[in-house]
Amino acid sequence: MKPIENSSYQVFFDNSLQSVHQILSKKKYSKIFVLTDEMTGQYCLPVFQEKLPELTDFDLIEVPNGEENKTIDFCIGIWQMLLEFEADRNAILINLGGGVVTDMGGFAASTFKRGIDFIQIPTTLLSQVDASVGGKTGVDLSDVKNIIGTFTQPEAVIIATDFLKTLDERQMTSGFAEVIKHGIIANADFFKEITALENANEITEKQIYHSIGIKNKVVLEDPFEKGLRKTLNFGHTIGHAIESWSLKNDKNSLLHGEAIALGMICEAYLAKEIIGLPESDLELITSSFLKFFGKYKIRQGIEQELLEIMKNDKKNVSGKIGFSLPDKLGNCLFDIFVEENLIKKSLNYYRSLEL
Amino acid sequence: MKPIENSSYQVFFDNSLQSVHQILSKKKYSKIFVLTDEMTGQYCLPVFQEKLPELTDFDLIEVPNGEENKTIDFCIGIWQMLLEFEADRNAILINLGGGVVTDMGGFAASTFKRGIDFIQIPTTLLSQVDASVGGKTGVDLSDVKNIIGTFTQPEAVIIATDFLKTLDERQMTSGFAEVIKHGIIANADFFKEITALENANEITEKQIYHSIGIKNKVVLEDPFEKGLRKTLNFGHTIGHAIESWSLKNDKNSLLHGEAIALGMICEAYLAKEIIGLPESDLELITSSFLKFFGKYKIRQGIEQELLEIMKNDKKNVSGKIGFSLPDKLGNCLFDIFVEENLIKKSLNYYRSLEL
Repeated sequence: MKPIENSSYQVFFDNSLQSVHQILSKKKYSKIFVLTDEMTGQYCLPVFQEKLPELTDFDLIEVPNGEENKTIDFCIGIWQMLLEFEADRNAILINLGGGVVTDMGGFAASTFKRGIDFIQIPTTLLSQVDASVGGKTGVDLSDVKNIIGTFTQPEAVIIATDFLKTLDERQMTSGFAEVIKHGIIANADFFKEITALENANEITEKQIYHSIGIKNKVVLEDPFEKGLRKTLNFGHTIGHAIESWSLKNDKNSLLHGEAIALGMICEAYLAKEIIGLPESDLELITSSFLKFFGKYKIRQGIEQELLEIMKNDKKNVSGKIGFSLPDKLGNCLFDIFVEENLIKKSLNYYRSLEL
Repeated sequence: MKPIENSSYQVFFDNSLQSVHQILSKKKYSKIFVLTDEMTGQYCLPVFQEKLPELTDFDLIEVPNGEENKTIDFCIGIWQMLLEFEADRNAILINLGGGVVTDMGGFAASTFKRGIDFIQIPTTLLSQVDASVGGKTGVDLSDVKNIIGTFTQPEAVIIATDFLKTLDERQMTSGFAEVIKHGIIANADFFKEITALENANEITEKQIYHSIGIKNKVVLEDPFEKGLRKTLNFGHTIGHAIESWSLKNDKNSLLHGEAIALGMICEAYLAKEIIGLPESDLELITSSFLKFFGKYKIRQGIEQELLEIMKNDKKNVSGKIGFSLPDKLGNCLFDIFVEENLIKKSLNYYRSLEL
């Protein structure tokens, strides 16, 4: 497949991973680092090494697995490892993993010695269609997600769908939420095409390509999220809040995509109430997410806590909680401020749903 | 005085501080934060408030005083305060202080919610002529100086020389080292003019303007330190090492400018040995720094420790220790790699000097 072009880098669709050589040969890098988490160190690193047997001279940095570890503390750990291995400004970091690795590794690279080069090799569906493109890097602080970060472009993003074979179904489905989102905010036909699949595992490389293409087009037009890019946040205001809450309170906490799927149902309800999303579109959105994600039990009485988390959302301005909402399937508005009461009602709408 | 123009912002010479209003009126900022350290909170904040009596609606964040506190830990403290005060993306941070405040505040702002606006109001001579211009932000980690940071331009830099009245002589002299450096690397006449002063307190606003103008010209030409900007590092390879060492080991540790002054003497010696800096220029450089800074006792037996610190210098590539060295007064070369033995000899040259 033809690489997707961003302003300063390319998104390669390359199961052979040979594009890694192409990038490494562009500059005389002094050292190569590979960042993984425990999981990708076990399941993806062997694949990486098998595909790139000539690439032996790298230092490995490993972080723990899981969203809850995408923190400034573990980022400090990465910086310290880079220091220990004597990384200089001409070093390059290859981030091999899901969103935790690409977001945190991207932030670590963008700030180490005021910025070293990095390559993103996202290994989950979620990070392939979402985290890897657009230049957002970030870590969490004080339980607030992605609150510390930069906008920094990688040298390249490499999509190798082979890595998806290492994922379990729950992780595939989690990533699928963002694919569906791209349909809702930008392309109704694509929404219908992918929600017609039996399950997330059926997604094709071409559909992944299409999904990344939608996101890439949006971030190219608005790299710093002044306007259009905000539409990518559909489902994320309520979704992030429930995700943060779940990380703290659930034993088996929600994955990002699962939380976002829930968030999109609630926010589609808001869209219907405020900006006239047709009832039939709300029903289509709701039933699609229920089909793939089932239903999560939102505990009673946590509304105020969720609202507090939403108020700390990066998207807010002047304390008002800002939403990105579709006015019809395939089109999305942004900077819509919603009353707290209506937000609570949207949670009750979700609670009232039946599978 | 006419503002000095950088690519994206202006350096105002403005004792009235009225330019603050000019910048704040450009955008609808949701919240204003002022960052000080204990010292500038006590001595500069009252001046700031007296000059800007209308500006009452800001939240104050204070960090401890001193180079040793320019750490990622205190930066996390700033981020947490911004969170606590519910800073959103349209907030602005005014950094009122020396290099610790402008470097650390700049880094905190450049990464909070992926970047909020900030204004630099440097209050020491050192930060006025050095830290404030050029867009470098940074904090220390594991005793390595400025190892974590970004290149991010402020909305404006405001130079109010009135603040210099709050400084003691030692701090003024420290800043003066960078002024002299600007002469050595770019303008021999300016070097002669300022080293002819009796002491650092005699420096005029015009000379500060000239000094910043030299730095600004260099950073405009090479914002990301790929080439020419490296000349600003003259004195800093050995200077930073001795500064780090002193911070850890001396009760009354060296100020930045004091360490850099020592570093420039040593590195001028290297310049004479390697690239033919005339003996007479070395003598002039040496005697000028001794005149303003006196002599520091470099402890015997710490050479290896200093070399280890130098190897972690951001300027290094592939483990070789890189220097920026003048080949004559008013001109500077860069990317000069020096043998460890010769570096040790330069320390002994310094030790052999007599006041």
